[in-house]
Amino acid sequence: MRFKLTVEYDGTDYLGWQLQPQGPTVQGVLEAALARLAGEPVRVTASGRTDAGVHAAGQVVAVTLRRAWTPDRLQRALNALTPRDVSITGAETVSDDFDPRRAARSRVYEYRIWNGRWPSPFWRRYAWHVSRALDLDAMQAGAQCFVGEHDFSAFRAAGCDAEHPVRRVLRSEWRRDGPQLVYTIEATAFLRHMVRNIVGTLVEVGTGARSAGGCAELLAARDRTLAGPTAPACGLCLTRVTY
Amino acid sequence: MRFKLTVEYDGTDYLGWQLQPQGPTVQGVLEAALARLAGEPVRVTASGRTDAGVHAAGQVVAVTLRRAWTPDRLQRALNALTPRDVSITGAETVSDDFDPRRAARSRVYEYRIWNGRWPSPFWRRYAWHVSRALDLDAMQAGAQCFVGEHDFSAFRAAGCDAEHPVRRVLRSEWRRDGPQLVYTIEATAFLRHMVRNIVGTLVEVGTGARSAGGCAELLAARDRTLAGPTAPACGLCLTRVTY
Repeated sequence: MRFKLTVEYDGTDYLGWQLQPQGPTVQGVLEAALARLAGEPVRVTASGRTDAGVHAAGQVVAVTLRRAWTPDRLQRALNALTPRDVSITGAETVSDDFDPRRAARSRVYEYRIWNGRWPSPFWRRYAWHVSRALDLDAMQAGAQCFVGEHDFSAFRAAGCDAEHPVRRVLRSEWRRDGPQLVYTIEATAFLRHMVRNIVGTLVEVGTGARSAGGCAELLAARDRTLAGPTAPACGLCLTRVTY
Repeated sequence: MRFKLTVEYDGTDYLGWQLQPQGPTVQGVLEAALARLAGEPVRVTASGRTDAGVHAAGQVVAVTLRRAWTPDRLQRALNALTPRDVSITGAETVSDDFDPRRAARSRVYEYRIWNGRWPSPFWRRYAWHVSRALDLDAMQAGAQCFVGEHDFSAFRAAGCDAEHPVRRVLRSEWRRDGPQLVYTIEATAFLRHMVRNIVGTLVEVGTGARSAGGCAELLAARDRTLAGPTAPACGLCLTRVTY
């Protein structure tokens, strides 16, 4: 029987989603919990990887189990076995051929900036602290350049193993949330570090170090060395995967 | 020169505010940072203690230093020396006789309940997870009983060293914040565990285990064994001290 699980995690203490020999991963703790329930090794598939320190509120994972669990019982049993920084927030049965990566229509990420003068102890794990004043209108204008189908080579990490660098962005916008600036980007798929590289660049737009219009030129130039730095992992969260 | 500092901290990894030989305390890390700046041991005074695991968004601390720092430079220097879970969010000069405990007119605490069916990785450090349905109207009615001057013996921890158990509550109310229920209580002063014992009791009102009207009877009976359990420390935050 195949299940679709929605998983929320605080990525701070993990080396990312994907199994690593060097340390704890979210896939690792989830497969360990499932193996205890199943009494045998279990492999899961996710909608995609998240990097070390990146969070998820809506990662989607699929798993096939021999036993015919009701989704509610499976969810309850798993939540009793996972550590407190990983929670299963949804469970349903799906067809045997459901592939959470290929079936996904889009992914939604949020990037959170704590834009107060002093760092916040409560948000240190979940937001990037930028103390300089940021021009939200300019950042909003810059963000608009990314909507549509573009070659994102300028925002692609060196180690990215995607076959081609063209991605279609459906939404790219900022909103203010008290002392925080929150960036939402939805795309059919993402390149490695793409969101964090876009945010690093838009923060330079916000400080006035580069112009909002320059973002379109960056896309056209397709040169990673021209774009801004990679924003820290802690601010990033995979909030939703749509099917 | 005497300074009034406003301090925010994530209390999760501390044994509370007050200096302890057994492990890290917020007072300890603050005094260590000040000692490095002053080049000699420094003692601070706070508006009051917070227990192990309890947070603060507006703890007020006073310290006397030989050197005439500008408040802004002192704040900047301290924030560079404190760990990331302790932040100085305000600094100003005060008169030499300012006593943050005696001068305080009131203290405001918030208690946060994560009332979702599944635990939240992001709120596990800052809210108590109660998965049962809670009747907010009943909890609000119960909370009203505490407003005014009362003998809070029924809500006082065994080890409380206060001289007398009468306290004046200025505000006691719940609000909904998405999937969270947030309790705000303001009083001239508090007994040990008073807020957590009140919240533990009001949650029993919320589940229907006791009646809202019963809160007034609990106050009158002055018997700790009749009130509800102590709510966990993680949900509690000292949000403000007024002068």
